[in-house]
Amino acid sequence: MQLYSYFRSSASYRVRIALALKNLSYDYVPVHLVKNEQLQPPFSQMSPARLVPLLKDGDHLLTQSLAIIEYLDETHPEPALLPGDPLARARVRALALDIACEIHPLDNLRVLRYLVNDLKVSEDDKNRWYRHWVETGLDAVERQLADSPATGRFSHGDTPTLADIVLVPQIFNAKRQDCRLDHVPTVMRIFDACMALDAFSKTQPSACPDAS
Amino acid sequence: MQLYSYFRSSASYRVRIALALKNLSYDYVPVHLVKNEQLQPPFSQMSPARLVPLLKDGDHLLTQSLAIIEYLDETHPEPALLPGDPLARARVRALALDIACEIHPLDNLRVLRYLVNDLKVSEDDKNRWYRHWVETGLDAVERQLADSPATGRFSHGDTPTLADIVLVPQIFNAKRQDCRLDHVPTVMRIFDACMALDAFSKTQPSACPDAS
Repeated sequence: MQLYSYFRSSASYRVRIALALKNLSYDYVPVHLVKNEQLQPPFSQMSPARLVPLLKDGDHLLTQSLAIIEYLDETHPEPALLPGDPLARARVRALALDIACEIHPLDNLRVLRYLVNDLKVSEDDKNRWYRHWVETGLDAVERQLADSPATGRFSHGDTPTLADIVLVPQIFNAKRQDCRLDHVPTVMRIFDACMALDAFSKTQPSACPDAS
Repeated sequence: MQLYSYFRSSASYRVRIALALKNLSYDYVPVHLVKNEQLQPPFSQMSPARLVPLLKDGDHLLTQSLAIIEYLDETHPEPALLPGDPLARARVRALALDIACEIHPLDNLRVLRYLVNDLKVSEDDKNRWYRHWVETGLDAVERQLADSPATGRFSHGDTPTLADIVLVPQIFNAKRQDCRLDHVPTVMRIFDACMALDAFSKTQPSACPDAS
């Protein structure tokens, strides 16, 4: 397999964690998002979505981090990244989507660029925007984790799931932008539990071949 | 089952379509997003995520439209909303996420409010922002649909899937905001095929009990 990734892309980091948890080997192919390499050939010709991560498995191209991770979980079931029970699966997926749909899309590089370049939003306001969505979004995740007996050492029980895989990269982004995190103690406890595992720590942005 | 929904919420509309495709009956409980009812008791006490849609199945509360739809597909398998093959499932999920993660979060009511109220973006710029993400996002979906032999009468093959369930509500939003749609002919052909089905047409916003 080849993973087209950018070290700071949190969606790419999600897939790196999933591959590591499943102990799957792959070639790392860097795509430099700040240089817009995803919009230019050869990448743009290979991927009509023009987004990283992109996973190449044989001749097959897979996009969208959550779809890639579900695919890996279906084709390499051990260790499972989703629980077996439908209600528990729904809880894990909802926690992942609370970040993947409610926080991360608002703080994407292309979105921040549009705010500054097209809407002429100031640097200060852009940073305020960034922190607002991270801090309020993580607050909603914290309420759900703190309130539920299903929360364990990790977001769901005592083994890492898709929910943790999406949570950890978001915390990296939050720290990079100096977001408040003292209001989400359960989130941070789970973050620390994840970072004690090689699958999370050895795939982090600064450990990537293209880190700069 | 009870579905907590707002007629104009496109994430709620996704779940209404899925329930209709599976011929499942439910009570419709309106939550008025413009009046911020989702942030106030009793809804906020019931749902720590404070988002619609919320599905109540017995004593269980489920949030996040895509997680709810996967749950319905796992607990009521017929008709299937995802294909059986892992690669095909990944394609359908990726198409759904191309809208659910790349377009819809940017044009949410709360995001538009933040742009206007907090960042003091003008009404014109807010509308430009809205159309930008819809038009460029649908363009990416169009490239993937038009390029693939897996596209059929619907986004994947000849029966409706999760990809169509997410696509149709986004087109409703696009039309409401006068977005360009002439550059996405495959998307619009599939939209028309969906709207010929009762599951899509009888659950549309204007058909909801709380439509105004």
